[in-house]
Amino acid sequence: MVAQEEWQVELKERRNAFWKIVKGLDCDLGLVYGSLERNEPFRYLTNFAPALGDMWGILRREGQMACLLNFHWQLEEARDLSGIEEWEGVFDLLPELVERLVSLNPKRVAVFGLERIPWKAMDSIQRNLPKLEVVNADAEFTALRQRKTLFEIRILREAVRITDEAIDLVRSELHPGMTEREVAARVSYYFSSRGAQNAFFPMVIAGTDRPAICRLPGDYVFKEGDPIMIDVGASWQGYQADVARTYVFGNPSPIQQKIWDTILRSYEAVLHLARPGTPCSHLHRAAEKIYEAAGFKLLHRIGHGYGLATSFEWPSLDSEEAPLEPGMTFAVEPGIYVQGANAMKLEEDLLITESGCEVLSKASRELVIFS
Amino acid sequence: MVAQEEWQVELKERRNAFWKIVKGLDCDLGLVYGSLERNEPFRYLTNFAPALGDMWGILRREGQMACLLNFHWQLEEARDLSGIEEWEGVFDLLPELVERLVSLNPKRVAVFGLERIPWKAMDSIQRNLPKLEVVNADAEFTALRQRKTLFEIRILREAVRITDEAIDLVRSELHPGMTEREVAARVSYYFSSRGAQNAFFPMVIAGTDRPAICRLPGDYVFKEGDPIMIDVGASWQGYQADVARTYVFGNPSPIQQKIWDTILRSYEAVLHLARPGTPCSHLHRAAEKIYEAAGFKLLHRIGHGYGLATSFEWPSLDSEEAPLEPGMTFAVEPGIYVQGANAMKLEEDLLITESGCEVLSKASRELVIFS
Repeated sequence: MVAQEEWQVELKERRNAFWKIVKGLDCDLGLVYGSLERNEPFRYLTNFAPALGDMWGILRREGQMACLLNFHWQLEEARDLSGIEEWEGVFDLLPELVERLVSLNPKRVAVFGLERIPWKAMDSIQRNLPKLEVVNADAEFTALRQRKTLFEIRILREAVRITDEAIDLVRSELHPGMTEREVAARVSYYFSSRGAQNAFFPMVIAGTDRPAICRLPGDYVFKEGDPIMIDVGASWQGYQADVARTYVFGNPSPIQQKIWDTILRSYEAVLHLARPGTPCSHLHRAAEKIYEAAGFKLLHRIGHGYGLATSFEWPSLDSEEAPLEPGMTFAVEPGIYVQGANAMKLEEDLLITESGCEVLSKASRELVIFS
Repeated sequence: MVAQEEWQVELKERRNAFWKIVKGLDCDLGLVYGSLERNEPFRYLTNFAPALGDMWGILRREGQMACLLNFHWQLEEARDLSGIEEWEGVFDLLPELVERLVSLNPKRVAVFGLERIPWKAMDSIQRNLPKLEVVNADAEFTALRQRKTLFEIRILREAVRITDEAIDLVRSELHPGMTEREVAARVSYYFSSRGAQNAFFPMVIAGTDRPAICRLPGDYVFKEGDPIMIDVGASWQGYQADVARTYVFGNPSPIQQKIWDTILRSYEAVLHLARPGTPCSHLHRAAEKIYEAAGFKLLHRIGHGYGLATSFEWPSLDSEEAPLEPGMTFAVEPGIYVQGANAMKLEEDLLITESGCEVLSKASRELVIFS
């Protein structure tokens, strides 16, 4: 567990770091935007995101932040979690936001979450403050988050642990006759009962004759010889894990065995390169070579960051050229999707250390379940 | 169940209706935007929304729609559900979208979901098509959805039924010693196993000494004399229900009984007015009168629409003056939040009929559980 007091210390440091970015960009105000879709900057500063709606934060000076929401029914919870006193909830939020900005009369504002701000809001801000200079602070925010702190790693470990436990639990319950949907429901139940949420919809793909990289769990009933791919992630205190396993009832077919061997060899190749100094994209290319030598195609990037998000978290391992550094976290997910094995995938959550890497995810990786 | 063929007929009609709006606004192109936060226009036309990311639809002429996503791993599912062939997934989506728009060279575009379009996207569109006239089609889209069709009502009935079943199931399992989180987990499990999702996080508030309108379920352990408020909603085929019940273990205290009586009387007053011709806001004011006479405050609006969304679905019953019409759907949710009863609320899902209204939600409304 992470005590509320520890969160408060962390949040104050984060807000001070943001204020430093604001000053470093020669701005006199910081503006933070979040939505359900992309709430990272807001959540980073408050340890809170409402169930719905827009989130705005105004940093006026060091240590001083005001928050505005249009889903205004969780303000007490927001105050408790954030340690920020000044929360306001207004259903029609934009006029209130603009009025506050006009009264503060900033010359130059550093904006976090700029690219996602709805067009209508930006238009309204610019029309009411025509001389305001808007500075995009997202690059600085991303840089701040590329290396996770010990505090963040502690929370991520717990998110991954909850995810591992859910996977091991459903692995122990898997049997022919069960459905994809039932497995997804069990995972959701486990996350909820642990005080976590699904970071993304629990993906369960089984069977052999409808290959798919990603789809909602359906009514498909497991039978002997099926691979069952489970790709799930717990979101715990805002931090998201992303782990996948594949299991086969009974003896794997030759194609299933060949796929799994290719996946394991790709994963080992990536793991071997996962240390400070390796450019991110090298991991993708190392896996690609092994796929091609085995006659398979690598249909999606070999991995991506995890933290306050998963799929859209930096780095995207196919295109990012930056070198790995200690404290970086990313998921590695070799998968193969062909007739005979709809979806077979392994996904592990890595942390780059000073000397190499640590694999945080520990759920059983044993392919075969004897039914 | 709703057969895939029925969906295809419905979706074609919807896309034709959109195209009529485009022409009616004297435009030569329709542009549809959706995000995880607000995907209604996109979902309305496709019966699909990806797990993450942005959704764009381009209506070029009657019956012709192309879709672009940046979460590009569910395209097969998207094709199946939508009956649309032309789906493209691009991680860096904006340049692709702009290129398509430039090549189509529209003079006047009708935009659905305009207000939520990220500022960066709109800026890029306007810089690359400087002469383009942008017309906001959201009012026309809202008008189209104010009266639900028989098809929509059929799906909403199923969403409400799944919600009712989850509530009745957990009601039968409630006992002192259980936690808020456990109830929420049970509801999530039931929804998942029925092929539905949580329309919003399952809210469970129990106890007597921490009044709250809304908060995440926690570790609180139920005990004799506690009111337990459960506010949950299944999202089924994109349509969302929103139902709340309150139960008390053993004999309600005098304050709890007084609160519940006030809630029931307010609800009956609203129900009495719920018929074609009544201005929406009259429902709120009728409840407010009863609250005030009983010495309570109505801390939030008495209700809101439900359909492809809940909290942000038209109408907001406190501010909307439009008269009710057959086919309109809204939730009525009288609640009282005071010391001695943290949260007591009743929420029912109504459908306005030709002559009055029908209450779709049927979960047991019996307050007392003898433990």
